[in-house]
Amino acid sequence: MMRFATTFFALLVSTSFAAAQTIYPIDRAEILAGARFDLKVEFAGEVSADKATLTVNGTDAAAVFGKAPELIAREDGRPQSALLLRDVALDKPGAYTVEAGDGADRRSVGWTVYDTGPRKAKNVILFIGDGLSPAHRVAARLLSKGIKEGRAGGKLAIDDMPQMALVSTAGSDSIITDSANAASAYATGHKAAVNAMGVYADRTASPLDDPRVETLASLAKRRLGLAIGIVTNTEVEDATPAAVIAHTRRRAAYDDIVAQFFAASPDVLMGGGAAYFLPKSAQGKRKDDVDYLAKFRDAGYAVATSATELAAAGKPDTRKLLGLFAPGNMDGVLDRRFLKGGGVAKNPDQPDLTEQVAVALDVLSKNEAGFFLMVESGMIDKYAHALDMERAVYDTIMLDNAVRQTRDWAKARGDDTLILVVADHNHPNALVGTVRDDLAEGEDVPLRERIGVYQRAGFPNYPAPDKDGYPDRVDVSRRLAIFSASLPDHYETLRPKLDGPNQPTEAGDKPGTFKANEKYKAVPGAVLRLGNLPAMMNASVHSGEDVILTAAGPGSDRVHGAMENTDVFRVMAEALGLAAASAK
Amino acid sequence: MMRFATTFFALLVSTSFAAAQTIYPIDRAEILAGARFDLKVEFAGEVSADKATLTVNGTDAAAVFGKAPELIAREDGRPQSALLLRDVALDKPGAYTVEAGDGADRRSVGWTVYDTGPRKAKNVILFIGDGLSPAHRVAARLLSKGIKEGRAGGKLAIDDMPQMALVSTAGSDSIITDSANAASAYATGHKAAVNAMGVYADRTASPLDDPRVETLASLAKRRLGLAIGIVTNTEVEDATPAAVIAHTRRRAAYDDIVAQFFAASPDVLMGGGAAYFLPKSAQGKRKDDVDYLAKFRDAGYAVATSATELAAAGKPDTRKLLGLFAPGNMDGVLDRRFLKGGGVAKNPDQPDLTEQVAVALDVLSKNEAGFFLMVESGMIDKYAHALDMERAVYDTIMLDNAVRQTRDWAKARGDDTLILVVADHNHPNALVGTVRDDLAEGEDVPLRERIGVYQRAGFPNYPAPDKDGYPDRVDVSRRLAIFSASLPDHYETLRPKLDGPNQPTEAGDKPGTFKANEKYKAVPGAVLRLGNLPAMMNASVHSGEDVILTAAGPGSDRVHGAMENTDVFRVMAEALGLAAASAK
Repeated sequence: MMRFATTFFALLVSTSFAAAQTIYPIDRAEILAGARFDLKVEFAGEVSADKATLTVNGTDAAAVFGKAPELIAREDGRPQSALLLRDVALDKPGAYTVEAGDGADRRSVGWTVYDTGPRKAKNVILFIGDGLSPAHRVAARLLSKGIKEGRAGGKLAIDDMPQMALVSTAGSDSIITDSANAASAYATGHKAAVNAMGVYADRTASPLDDPRVETLASLAKRRLGLAIGIVTNTEVEDATPAAVIAHTRRRAAYDDIVAQFFAASPDVLMGGGAAYFLPKSAQGKRKDDVDYLAKFRDAGYAVATSATELAAAGKPDTRKLLGLFAPGNMDGVLDRRFLKGGGVAKNPDQPDLTEQVAVALDVLSKNEAGFFLMVESGMIDKYAHALDMERAVYDTIMLDNAVRQTRDWAKARGDDTLILVVADHNHPNALVGTVRDDLAEGEDVPLRERIGVYQRAGFPNYPAPDKDGYPDRVDVSRRLAIFSASLPDHYETLRPKLDGPNQPTEAGDKPGTFKANEKYKAVPGAVLRLGNLPAMMNASVHSGEDVILTAAGPGSDRVHGAMENTDVFRVMAEALGLAAASAK
Repeated sequence: MMRFATTFFALLVSTSFAAAQTIYPIDRAEILAGARFDLKVEFAGEVSADKATLTVNGTDAAAVFGKAPELIAREDGRPQSALLLRDVALDKPGAYTVEAGDGADRRSVGWTVYDTGPRKAKNVILFIGDGLSPAHRVAARLLSKGIKEGRAGGKLAIDDMPQMALVSTAGSDSIITDSANAASAYATGHKAAVNAMGVYADRTASPLDDPRVETLASLAKRRLGLAIGIVTNTEVEDATPAAVIAHTRRRAAYDDIVAQFFAASPDVLMGGGAAYFLPKSAQGKRKDDVDYLAKFRDAGYAVATSATELAAAGKPDTRKLLGLFAPGNMDGVLDRRFLKGGGVAKNPDQPDLTEQVAVALDVLSKNEAGFFLMVESGMIDKYAHALDMERAVYDTIMLDNAVRQTRDWAKARGDDTLILVVADHNHPNALVGTVRDDLAEGEDVPLRERIGVYQRAGFPNYPAPDKDGYPDRVDVSRRLAIFSASLPDHYETLRPKLDGPNQPTEAGDKPGTFKANEKYKAVPGAVLRLGNLPAMMNASVHSGEDVILTAAGPGSDRVHGAMENTDVFRVMAEALGLAAASAK
């Protein structure tokens, strides 16, 4: 599914701008004082060096930045010129007007460069529930805490935090984000286009030459010497973990992303996606013959490929750790612990996210200067795309466990750590009621008559959760009915998929289209539901509602009200005092 | 639609409890010190007076409350006894164990009685967006503030408040609430069953004898002499406004609710629903011949039936005001201002919610002791049920205007007023992208190919909003695609309904069922979409996600993290120091 989606994105994103000159960073960009960025002007036509102008608050850009912009006469061999200034920064906070001219027309954008004040937090930990939606949240609470006469048996750790805000998720090109530009907003403080991370997606064909913006990881490392950690249960090259480090407008550029990981050398990197670390000649998926596993090992990384190895890898002298626990995505907790579906049979010794986080904290906290850690529960999103409610909710509970454990860890060391928990975008899921096997009887009763709404929903009857908050069965007789408002054609069975993650669609008759997966046609009562999405979509899509950000620890008081997703970067930058450091 | 729904609820709620004795208030009830309630024990069978026992922390209930419980030997003529103690209170905070016995079995429940501390706020204003969902919220921001390159042009007043929390909405009988028990949780601090307000729904047939719990309005009036205001744009008898005052387990008991309004004598009561104030012999909908309009007038109320009369009614000596601006629900702002659909042609002089609120504040603030005001933007919910996205979003903008105006009002008087903004329950709506008339061409192109997702969604092209935040057109070529995850059979047209509110269904072939409304069959491109709800549902249903509570003003610091809907009552009670007052 992801493979399709990324190809689709890549095709569409190449639409070029045509009108007046485009300036990157874009209008109304908010830029951390001292953070590096590439300044690019794209002219609509060819412009000669003597005509092209670029000023910052009325002063020639060359003087402001200490170097002259490069004039690219014909970008991509077309009659379109550009000015490019790579790796510049503005140290002084304030309002900036950047104006570009081609001798005839001029266009300006306004930027705000902001300061941060002194450092408040030693460490920053950003938890991302990929695609975590309100329906997953309430379902995770219902399953892991129980409910009686309407009152929950407890609170989720992700909810029970002193600060909360709504974060709007639109990207620079659309009201709907994907995980690349969503994570990039958190990682860089700049809005980006769908499919892009760490860059403004420009008009040229290359996915690697786009104007870059600096990541929090880079800033934290070069300014403060912080250790950097990335923990996920998806492929580590996938959009959310990649965005911590990488700069590309094509999230599918996995080979390049691994190369960028190696160059940036994060102290902890854990997840799935081993196939892109292995040369083509081995069983790898890379298009080249570089053995990145060997390269990381040679660079001093401890390497773990299983839960057992991970437990051993957290030894006292480990300062650099690469954990790759599956060729592709890791399996979700419902499969790993209970159903043994998905890739679990082939790969049974995968760690839990909580185990990954525990080792990451051990390794990273050895750095005296502190650390920045991003932790993603990333399969929530994949399962939500696939209309697999149970697996998405179990991985939400797993996220909650990781957050609880980390808050306990932070409390034990005197609350020196800013902890943020946020989704990157929503899914159009909703808890509509319950599926009740007792509501309707008889072979001829349509499946939909089993949906209990309002008081007919009652309360679900999952077994009491185990100590980690997981009921040991999902195929109970009154189960949560979480539906999506965006549907491809699919067979609705109203049953949890016990054999492995749901696969609602398969390739359609026309190339690039999808149809309902015939696999589920014979399930008793299955109903063919016609979708409401274009036939090129093979799964439920993201939705554009705000996501919920909760926060605790030093610097979290900045979290309230309505925020842009770029403000999440700013909260972290302020907690670490990243601009103030530059003033030294 | 509402008519159907309430009948449906009424039928289902009569399911009786059978097992051990049931005690009301229920287990884990949190009770404000000094707030009145009815204590009821329902025994499974007949129990004689000498066998029936009821103790509070081991002491006989008669001694604790100063009066003996009434033994009802055979409730509803059935072999089932009950103990009933009406209108009692517990003044001392702490944990209470209430145990009932029938000579053989005993059962106990635990209550927490809580104190409040001193009063912090002179006034409390509770804004309720009925059914206001995250999709409505982000759409209201997009339309009223604009968006450019992913960055909003401004903040909604409902978002831009210092405090925020997630409020869980489950009722005592189900994970899904309706507006009756949702509003009742806010009004009383007790969980209730679907369809019920101000009572625990007991097993007897009467909708008016159920064990009551005291409302905030009652407490605020009898303890502190506060003025009470209720402002809505639905029928004033509808669940949300009714729950401020009324006690009934049947929200459809409109005649009785009007009688309870009159008995409680709120200082301001405004909305639609005039038909239930008029005798059967006039054009009224009452089943009796009481003229409540005359009764209110005789009791000293100024009466307004139009925007013009409302403007005149707010004169300096008005202390009691009844405003009834439509026989049924008032029309939403999209119809009133722009489309002139719905009931606007017949009834063109209806006030805006902001005008209603302005007059309410004028009248109520004449009370030296302060006031409690509930303001509902109630048509959001009706339109969401009817899959009428545009109307729901416009009424969300209207709510936002009312909140902004009220915050300005509060600031001007030195912030002596706690302002809360909350939904009562969610709808399963999601912003999936945009509907793009330019995405697909040709008669044979399926409607769904017009849905732009991810970067194909882009940004909507509604006209710039007027000074009140409303674009003057909704039938633009790139419009928001807000879909529901719960659907009755209906014709999907992907077009705004310009002639009047959407009516997705009509009566089905079997009694009590619904089918797609043939009215929309001929709309070009219309597609019959099979729903996923039982055929007895004529509309999209409520969903069970948490709702967002934002707050400002004295006492708002209690708003954070995850809260039960009953905690909203507690926040208001604490701001007013309602328990502390009882200690005097």
